[in-house]
Amino acid sequence: MIADLARLVGAEHVVAEPRADALADASAYAGVSGQAAALVRPGHAEEVASVVTWCADRGVPVVPRGGGTGFSGGCVPQDPTSVVVAVDRLDAVRALDPLQWRAHVEAGVTTARLARLARENGLRFPVDPGAAEQSHVGGNIATNAGGPHCFKYGVTRAWVLGVEAVLGNGDLVTVGGSVRKDAAGYDLAGLLCGSEGTLGIITAAWMRLIPAPPIEVPLAAVFADARAGQDGIDAVLGSGVVPAVVEFLDAGSLRAAGPTFPGGLPRDAGFLLIVEVDTTEDDVAEVVQALDEAGGTVLRPDDRELWRWRDGVSIAVAAQHGGKLSEDIGVPVECVAEAVQATVEIAARHGLEGCSWGHAGDGNLHSTFLLDPTDAAQLERADAAAKDLFAMALSLGGTVSGEHGIGLLKAGWLSKQWAPGAVAAQEAIRHALDPAGVMNPGVKRP
Amino acid sequence: MIADLARLVGAEHVVAEPRADALADASAYAGVSGQAAALVRPGHAEEVASVVTWCADRGVPVVPRGGGTGFSGGCVPQDPTSVVVAVDRLDAVRALDPLQWRAHVEAGVTTARLARLARENGLRFPVDPGAAEQSHVGGNIATNAGGPHCFKYGVTRAWVLGVEAVLGNGDLVTVGGSVRKDAAGYDLAGLLCGSEGTLGIITAAWMRLIPAPPIEVPLAAVFADARAGQDGIDAVLGSGVVPAVVEFLDAGSLRAAGPTFPGGLPRDAGFLLIVEVDTTEDDVAEVVQALDEAGGTVLRPDDRELWRWRDGVSIAVAAQHGGKLSEDIGVPVECVAEAVQATVEIAARHGLEGCSWGHAGDGNLHSTFLLDPTDAAQLERADAAAKDLFAMALSLGGTVSGEHGIGLLKAGWLSKQWAPGAVAAQEAIRHALDPAGVMNPGVKRP
Repeated sequence: MIADLARLVGAEHVVAEPRADALADASAYAGVSGQAAALVRPGHAEEVASVVTWCADRGVPVVPRGGGTGFSGGCVPQDPTSVVVAVDRLDAVRALDPLQWRAHVEAGVTTARLARLARENGLRFPVDPGAAEQSHVGGNIATNAGGPHCFKYGVTRAWVLGVEAVLGNGDLVTVGGSVRKDAAGYDLAGLLCGSEGTLGIITAAWMRLIPAPPIEVPLAAVFADARAGQDGIDAVLGSGVVPAVVEFLDAGSLRAAGPTFPGGLPRDAGFLLIVEVDTTEDDVAEVVQALDEAGGTVLRPDDRELWRWRDGVSIAVAAQHGGKLSEDIGVPVECVAEAVQATVEIAARHGLEGCSWGHAGDGNLHSTFLLDPTDAAQLERADAAAKDLFAMALSLGGTVSGEHGIGLLKAGWLSKQWAPGAVAAQEAIRHALDPAGVMNPGVKRP
Repeated sequence: MIADLARLVGAEHVVAEPRADALADASAYAGVSGQAAALVRPGHAEEVASVVTWCADRGVPVVPRGGGTGFSGGCVPQDPTSVVVAVDRLDAVRALDPLQWRAHVEAGVTTARLARLARENGLRFPVDPGAAEQSHVGGNIATNAGGPHCFKYGVTRAWVLGVEAVLGNGDLVTVGGSVRKDAAGYDLAGLLCGSEGTLGIITAAWMRLIPAPPIEVPLAAVFADARAGQDGIDAVLGSGVVPAVVEFLDAGSLRAAGPTFPGGLPRDAGFLLIVEVDTTEDDVAEVVQALDEAGGTVLRPDDRELWRWRDGVSIAVAAQHGGKLSEDIGVPVECVAEAVQATVEIAARHGLEGCSWGHAGDGNLHSTFLLDPTDAAQLERADAAAKDLFAMALSLGGTVSGEHGIGLLKAGWLSKQWAPGAVAAQEAIRHALDPAGVMNPGVKRP
């Protein structure tokens, strides 16, 4: 195998028996580790195609790897005969067309690099998942990544004009490109978005950009509790303004992260909304009034400091007990308070502390169970609590994953979310595009 | 068959040997007509499922029918044994949640009705294809319909939160719903968008809405010719403003429709841009300045009058010689002028008059060949010209269809746009979701 792969991508780009840390992602916190026979780093799309073809012909599992920042184990190989295909050498910006609001980038270009290129040209790439310096555009597409600004701007799918990808049979295909509308074929580019490496490996993409907004004004509003906070969310959505961001932190998250909030928070803060308005000062005033009338105490934190602080929320929460199990359920936006309260109650039922924060406007909660990661009993209880959490999200008409995907960790849950016919359709599509069953075979199991 | 279908949907909702006009769509202008054994009008989704199951079990072609306003023959049955499934009785608004910017509607609700419901609640459904009073939400989804405002707001796909659909095997499935983000399963809702009835029949959908914009200011700018007009497009895209609409008419279209332009047009108008700004008066001023600096003569037509006029452009063009063959190619936005000129040249080469208008900002041209529909030789030349037109669009990195789809009329063209691997992927997906091959079998052939 190693000799064959070396012929395909060059010996210096094949790692036999790769180290565990080269196979892990952020699910390592949950004890997920990988094993693989080889890791290859192709230098261009044709090399990716040759590796996938080699594997498909032999029934060898292929595990695509981007920045390795996923939370679900989506790039963590479980079969020791797997070949990991890392796309970090596919890092060319093939074209940047600022006047056409467009970039053509390879899969290994980082989210932050694309965002910087856009900014330097007066534009924005508004998709802003965490770990922007590590995560790749290809990984964003494979997971249909989100982030705070996706409330207004939509998740990755909304920014993909076209993809170049190697399908499960080794075919290198291009669908879409520099055109903004295309009704000719099925939406294969969209199908690859969020497919978690199970249908193919994205090698490059045409990404849509947008002119930078005229302003970016962050507001924060403190409420007594989640119920009051839901009134705040309703007030923002009913204000007539389309905010760029509607984030929240509940009481438990604020206990961990509140003390370092830029400019400070009232001591009795039981729920925090963060709203960014990027249109006009009139709109800012509308939203301030709406939050105020809903009973919120409105603050205007510094923009940069706020987002630096927001990036640290997850770490601050984890620091409470040394570790955490963090999920990403989605519920209808009118159910945010209910899901926040249910998270705490589920945690308590399992003898844990629970909290949540996340994307209020999208109804997307990072519901979290605090734990000591060295305590096996706590880990087990957190796992049981997560199952109750998923069931709660589904009972509200929600989803077990708003942004992280199924990966390894949520195997089996799609079958509880979707009726058998829809699951069967997904499996039929998977088999159609990966007839040999080699593409990330352990991942996204319904 | 008729007796069986009557048992499934009620005898009064089965039409045996339906009349030709009940089987036609807007492709009738190109001489496309249909024939079918029966037309059924199910009253709810379960009845749709029972009809599709009945057909799939017997290998009987199923042709889904919405408002019948498509341009490609996508709902025009070619096999005389076909069963047409019309969804016009599925016309319930199941839920309207203005505060959550959301509507749950059945497939037969018209585009205009959804748009009106949104407006009455201070919201917008921004997808605005032609024939809004006739076209259905289900048809919009099946064709991934566009329109002028899709420049800023995106095509139908961007507004679908979830779908209820009957797949080719008769399974009634629901994917997505009231949640705004969902990373659990493949994007089956997105895959159904633009699938032209070949994967299933949409029976209902959860549609996203958005607060009404604060203003809607239409601008028009007159240029000497397409080259100068391209400078105008560049200037608008480079202004830093995100306009809601960037439409164009070329010289030939203006000869037909220019004389009735609200407020009049300069006599030497060789190219018209229509730009709508829906953000702020400052943005309006920016765009006016950009158009002016690019050499355009800027006009401010009345909003209602402008859109009424714009709706009549197609008819005004057709009236020139009694008929037309109108296409919808897409090209990269920087190639609009080139495609406009090429349309005229291709027409001339085939002894016809050619013109174009459409969605400049999306690079989506309704390239049109004027003709006398009673002249068979002209029809034949127009058909040959259309083939040259598609080839031209592809040579510019474009698409043979920006919004109308493949239908019957563009059968075979996807294979010229996509490499064999991508076409094979589409066919594999089609077979996976419609194993009996009964779903709109003549349509969207690559």
